[in-house]
This record gives sequence, structure tokens and C-alpha cells, in this order.
Amino acid sequence: MPPKESADLLIEARWVLPIAPVNTVLTDHAVAVTAGRIVALGPIAELSARFEPRERVVRSGHALLPGLVNAHTRAATTLFRGLPVYGPRARWMRETVLPVVRRCMSPDLVRDGTTLAIAEMLRAGITSFADMYLYPEEAARAASAARMRAAIGLPVTDGPTAWADSTTEHLAKAEQLWDEYKSDPWISLYFAPHDAFGEGDATLARVRRVADELDARVAMYLPAEAVHPNHGRPLPKLQELGLLGPGFTAIHLSGLNEQELEIAATTGICVVACPQSHLRLGSEFCPVMRFDSRHIGVGFGTDSALSVGALDLLAEARMAALLAGVGVRETDEEAPAAESVLRMATLGGATALGLGSLVGSIEVGKAADFVCFELTTLACQPTARPADTILFSATRDHVSDVWTSGRAAVSDGHLLAFDERELLALARQWANRISTGVAR
Amino acid sequence: MPPKESADLLIEARWVLPIAPVNTVLTDHAVAVTAGRIVALGPIAELSARFEPRERVVRSGHALLPGLVNAHTRAATTLFRGLPVYGPRARWMRETVLPVVRRCMSPDLVRDGTTLAIAEMLRAGITSFADMYLYPEEAARAASAARMRAAIGLPVTDGPTAWADSTTEHLAKAEQLWDEYKSDPWISLYFAPHDAFGEGDATLARVRRVADELDARVAMYLPAEAVHPNHGRPLPKLQELGLLGPGFTAIHLSGLNEQELEIAATTGICVVACPQSHLRLGSEFCPVMRFDSRHIGVGFGTDSALSVGALDLLAEARMAALLAGVGVRETDEEAPAAESVLRMATLGGATALGLGSLVGSIEVGKAADFVCFELTTLACQPTARPADTILFSATRDHVSDVWTSGRAAVSDGHLLAFDERELLALARQWANRISTGVAR
Repeated sequence: MPPKESADLLIEARWVLPIAPVNTVLTDHAVAVTAGRIVALGPIAELSARFEPRERVVRSGHALLPGLVNAHTRAATTLFRGLPVYGPRARWMRETVLPVVRRCMSPDLVRDGTTLAIAEMLRAGITSFADMYLYPEEAARAASAARMRAAIGLPVTDGPTAWADSTTEHLAKAEQLWDEYKSDPWISLYFAPHDAFGEGDATLARVRRVADELDARVAMYLPAEAVHPNHGRPLPKLQELGLLGPGFTAIHLSGLNEQELEIAATTGICVVACPQSHLRLGSEFCPVMRFDSRHIGVGFGTDSALSVGALDLLAEARMAALLAGVGVRETDEEAPAAESVLRMATLGGATALGLGSLVGSIEVGKAADFVCFELTTLACQPTARPADTILFSATRDHVSDVWTSGRAAVSDGHLLAFDERELLALARQWANRISTGVAR
Repeated sequence: MPPKESADLLIEARWVLPIAPVNTVLTDHAVAVTAGRIVALGPIAELSARFEPRERVVRSGHALLPGLVNAHTRAATTLFRGLPVYGPRARWMRETVLPVVRRCMSPDLVRDGTTLAIAEMLRAGITSFADMYLYPEEAARAASAARMRAAIGLPVTDGPTAWADSTTEHLAKAEQLWDEYKSDPWISLYFAPHDAFGEGDATLARVRRVADELDARVAMYLPAEAVHPNHGRPLPKLQELGLLGPGFTAIHLSGLNEQELEIAATTGICVVACPQSHLRLGSEFCPVMRFDSRHIGVGFGTDSALSVGALDLLAEARMAALLAGVGVRETDEEAPAAESVLRMATLGGATALGLGSLVGSIEVGKAADFVCFELTTLACQPTARPADTILFSATRDHVSDVWTSGRAAVSDGHLLAFDERELLALARQWANRISTGVAR
């Protein structure tokens, strides 16, 4: 008998859903991990015979998947959670959100709010996220310290923000951060112009030029209500300015006509849907299945904790799946398979973050970012089709284990990556600071 | 100092949301229970001084509410969970559901499936449910044995079912069951005619007559797609037949025109929305806020585990709240307050079951049916407005405790009402029996 190979970690699970290849459910399979990377995926018996792992984790009533990807959030806004929410979005932003944000915004707030969001997301099975907020250096530092994969948006806007005064200063700070993080294994950066019409065309073109030089992605928020009364619809304009391409992510792309859908398909952009946040603020649905059938990549985001409550990517995926059923009666098409929706929640999101070759599926060579769902509760019986069970019967609290690059952030239901009591104390401190003088 | 009053149970909570009076959040309050009934609600200090309870439960980071009400389900279908789901509903029922149901239907299946559903619902904070399935005597027996409040539908249809052969036999069996359960503290019965157009008008009128004699409620399933090509819309027809009134519950009433909304308001019927099930099967939304603003009582139901996955009333309430935001942009109205939605999930549902004077709110004299949500997780911070936190940040797995008539069914996260391992074994047995010969 040949000597066994060493491995850092062997995870044995009742089911493995590798996401790639598509629609695959492997029963009684294991994953071997060494140096943070997946080195093998195969039947438990086979991998047990082949490897002598330093650590073995047995999850006999569980499903192992690539970690969930929160492809759009504003992480630090966890600190503002609980402000009243009402639609329409513009009025709510103006009357409720911005006055509090303006009064409280600081680098400390972004650091602590992002840290709290990271802990919450890891606990919910999210191993990568894309952030879009101010003080990106604070968010990047928090994510890297927590060993969580993050794409951090570099805000660019003509007007002054709390972070920088002008387009030039925004871009200068962005490039400085780019240099600082270019070799960080956890952090990637992308450009996040604030508004398709708020910024001058020259600014948007300049962002594209800088992004091209750095081979950086660009992401923008483009809901149906972003249509401008004088300048029309954002997608054709952004195409004209040369912003659209496989390196572009459109967040909450809704209210599209056929021409715009064609633009999205031919330019190869990615789309991120944030279904719960947008419903709560009265927005149109992002038609994820229409994108999927045109081979436009789709991921899911929670958007801000302000509008959505918990940062719960599984709930976003379920909501997207349920909303995709809305048109079924008319078109007589089938509702999306749970497998397709879980692919969006993992590989689709990873691709939108520019991390599709590193994470998003359980394949040899990829980083060992996993989530494990315990499917032994009554509500998960019978588990005839585990993808269905995860999507429609489990909750984020069924997440038993989470690994990033092979290290456990959550183990058997316990958050290891942080001291939860310290975080709760931090949340209380900020709640007191923020609520001072805020009418409730 | 006067001697203290005795009580069976004193529950002290960080927050109590009594639901009635409306929009009330009590901080650091307690509830005293004796002989299964609420005897006092007041500040912790006050009730601690007044009562010497046999048992004291302290929940210092939790919110106590009346138990959730699942106002429409088909409990035994938990055993069929995991069959493929696709829309439209009629095709799915015909091609996927009915062949399996026909092959497997039996009193044993209803007994065990209902028992599993009851355990799952209690664990999720549901203390009352309305069932609509076959072999109602089995469902009634299972609920009564489990000390769970249930309104059990008595099926009435002209054609033969597994339970009875004719209208007359359905009604005869129904009346027999009525006599058997009329003094059971846990069980109420209602008439459940199958279809507004499938049954003859004489049958529907006969149901109304029998129900009137017994002072029984009638509930029917009336989604938009129940519109008949020849006989038009069901609501005006049912009004003409004299079926509508405060004792009538319309399940998933959607696709209403203004005249029908007026009928619903003037006749005083109750409405039950099942948002997740209906989205999944491509149905129209049930416009809960339009009903609410007309003072039409609204409750929520999960419908069948076949179409919805978990029996998760909190998820239904959240979905209803989010869908109610869909029209907000147009009408410029505010999205519904979380308090209104939680009222529908409790008192609204209780009223639709005819139990509004017994449960659905924390008021002195009502039965001690409670759910307690632990709000100490990171995703629930800050808890500025507990109703918002429960609806948008918690999951059903945040349920820490459940009481029915003052006895704990769930305590500190553990299901006491059943041996969970025995139930899981039972679920496995049925999964094997049902899957035999079923293509997956």
C-alpha cells in the first residue's frame, strides 16, 4: 500500500454541491485541502484511503457548498440598522438616511461597522463580499484582518464626499490604495462611480481609462429609477462612453427594454440583483432568469443593512427564486431550478467580483472557501433534493461551518473568527453614539 | 406587605409585543400565567412583587409575542416535501403532486405527516394552525395529542375522495366529527368546500346551511386563477349563494377588482395570504395592505410544504411585508409598519380561524400561547425597533421558547413537545415508502 498523502484538512459530507459542473449533487463525498487550496474532491472512501489529513471534519447530515458571495453590500451600514424604512427610495434616503449618515460618518465607523458586518456575514455562510461605501481603506483593512475575501469599491464622484474633495482626489486616493493592496491575498479593489448621470461624462470616461490601465473592474448601481428625465436611460449612455464590458458589474439592473437587454448580453457585463432591499424600497424586480437565459452572469447582493435588515444571502437567493416564479403563468416556462439559483449565489457572485477563477465552486486548484449547511432539522425532511432543501427549507442559521482558504471561521455553529461578546459590546457602543439625538 | 399571589408561570422579557393594543412595544415587562390563561401583564418589577410563580423564565435579550398563527396549511404534505416544483399550479398538481398523493394517501399518512408538521411548526413559533386536507379525524387527533391549537377543515365535495364518496357522506362524517370534538379545548372544526365551481350550487348552499346550524366557519381557496371561463368570478357567486360573512375565510384572495374588494369589505370575510407558496407557483400577489386599509382582516398561511418548503410563518410575514412595498413607488404610500405585519401573523390569523377572542394577543384572560424570539445575534443589532428586528433580521431559528396554554413546547431552543429523534426516524420511514417507484 503506498503511503498516504498529507493534507491540512479533509471534510467529509453527506452531500457536496460543487456548483461546477452544473446541477451536480455528490453523495458521501469529501474535499481535501492543503495550503488553503482544494487538492481533491471525491467519494469519502477514496479520499480517506488517499489522504492522511491533519484535521478531519465529518458532517454526516450536511451539504457542503462553495461559500456564498454577497456581491453588493454597504457593510458599515450595519451600525445604522433599525432606522425607519419606507419608500420611495429617494425620499427615504433624503429624509431618514442621509441626515444620520452625515452626522456620524467617520473612518472609525466604517472600520467597526464593516467588522460587525463581516462577522455577521461569515456566520451566515458568506465568504466573499463586494463593498461600496466610503473610507475603502478601512473596509479593506477590516476584511483582510478577518481573512475574508472582499472586493472593495473605490468611490469616484465629482462632488466632495467625506473621503475626498474632487474627482482628482478620489482617483488619487484610489490609485494609492490600489498600490497598497495589490498583493493582499484577501482584497481586490474596483472603481465605483456614484451615479450614471450625477458625474460628468468626462469623469466616467476617466474612470474607465484608469480602470483599464490597472485592469480593474467597475461597478455601478443601475436600478430602473436611475432613468434620467433629460438624459434618458443609463445603459446606452454607459455603452457609448465605453464603460460596459466583461469587467463591468451592473447592480440591480431593472426596468430594461429589449435593446438594453441586448446591450447587456453583447457587452458581457455581470448583473447583481438585491431582491429584498429593492422590494422593501418599492423598486422593480431585477429579472434574473431573463439574464440567465441570455447567458448574462448574475450574482446576488444584500445591499445595505439599512434597507434589508440581516445580511442574509440565502434569503436573497430564495427571494430571487420565488420572484422568478412570478411570470411563470404567462410564459408557461418552468420556475428556475434551485441549482441555478445556488449557482448565482456562489459562482455568479464570484464572477461579478472578478474572483470567478479563484472561488465560487468546489474544484481542484480553487481556494478552500466553503459553507456547510446542516440539513437534519425536521423542516429539511425529507432531503430528496438537497439544493431544494437548502434554498426552500433551510435558513442562514442552518450554517454549521464556514471556511476561508481552508481555515474555519465558523465551526459546528460557533463563530471562531471573532469574539462575539466583544462585537456585541462594540455594536452597543455604536448604537448609543448614533442614537443620541436621533428621533425614533 | 400583603402575601404574594400564586401563579404557575412568570415570563420576564426584555420586550413584550402584546399586539393588542396596536403598535405597542413594552420594555422589561413580564406576563403571569395561571391555569393556562394570562392573569397579568406589567413591568417586571411590578409583577415580581405581586406574584410568587411556581416557575420563572427570564429572557433578558428576547421579545415575547403571542404565538404565530399558520392560517392555512395542508399539514400532512410535509411527507411529500422535495417533489419537483414548477408552475403553473394546475400542471404541477396534475403531473407531479396528484399521482404521488393518490398512490400514498391513507389515514396513517395524515396522522404521521400532521404530527411531523406540528413539531416543525411549534419549533418555528407557530402555536395555532388551520389545516385543509383529507382524513380530518387523524389531523384533529394529532393536534389535540400535541396540545396544539388547530382549526381542522372538514372537506366537502360532490365527487368521491379518499375520505368519503358523496356530498352526503362528506357532510355526515363532518357532523359526526363535530360532535366528537365540540368540547376539545385544542380543536375547532370548519367546513372546507373544495372549489367554488367544482361543486354544485346546491352543495355550497347546503354547506352554508349546515355551518349556520352548527355556528361553524367556512373557508375556501380563492386565488385569481379560480376564475371560471364560463361562470366568471367566484366572489360574487359565493355572495349570491349566501356563503360570505364574518364566518367565511377566503384563502389567497387575489386578482380582485374594485367590486370584489367592496364585497370582501362589506360582508366582513377574513382573508389569508400565502405569499411564498403562491410566488413559487406563479400566482398573483394577495394585496394584503389593500385589505388592511379597508379593515378586512388578514392572516398568513404557509400553504403546503410541497410548494413552500419549510412551514415558516415568519418568512411568510416577511415576504408579505416586502411584497407590500412593490406598489409603494406608484402610490407614494408608506410601506407597512412591521407592527401591522406581525399583527396579521398573530391576531389576524387567529381571527381567520375563529379564535380571535382566545389567542392572537397578550391580554389578560386569553390563553397563554406565546413565542419568544432571541434577539441577541449580531444580525439583530442594534435592536432599535424590535418589531422590525423580528421581521427583517431574525429567522425562525431565533425562536427560543414556545408555550401553548402556558406549557412549554419549546424551551431555550429545545423541542420539548416531542422526541425529535423519533420524529426524524418516522420521517425517514415515510420518505422510503413514498419514494419507492417515484422518479426523482
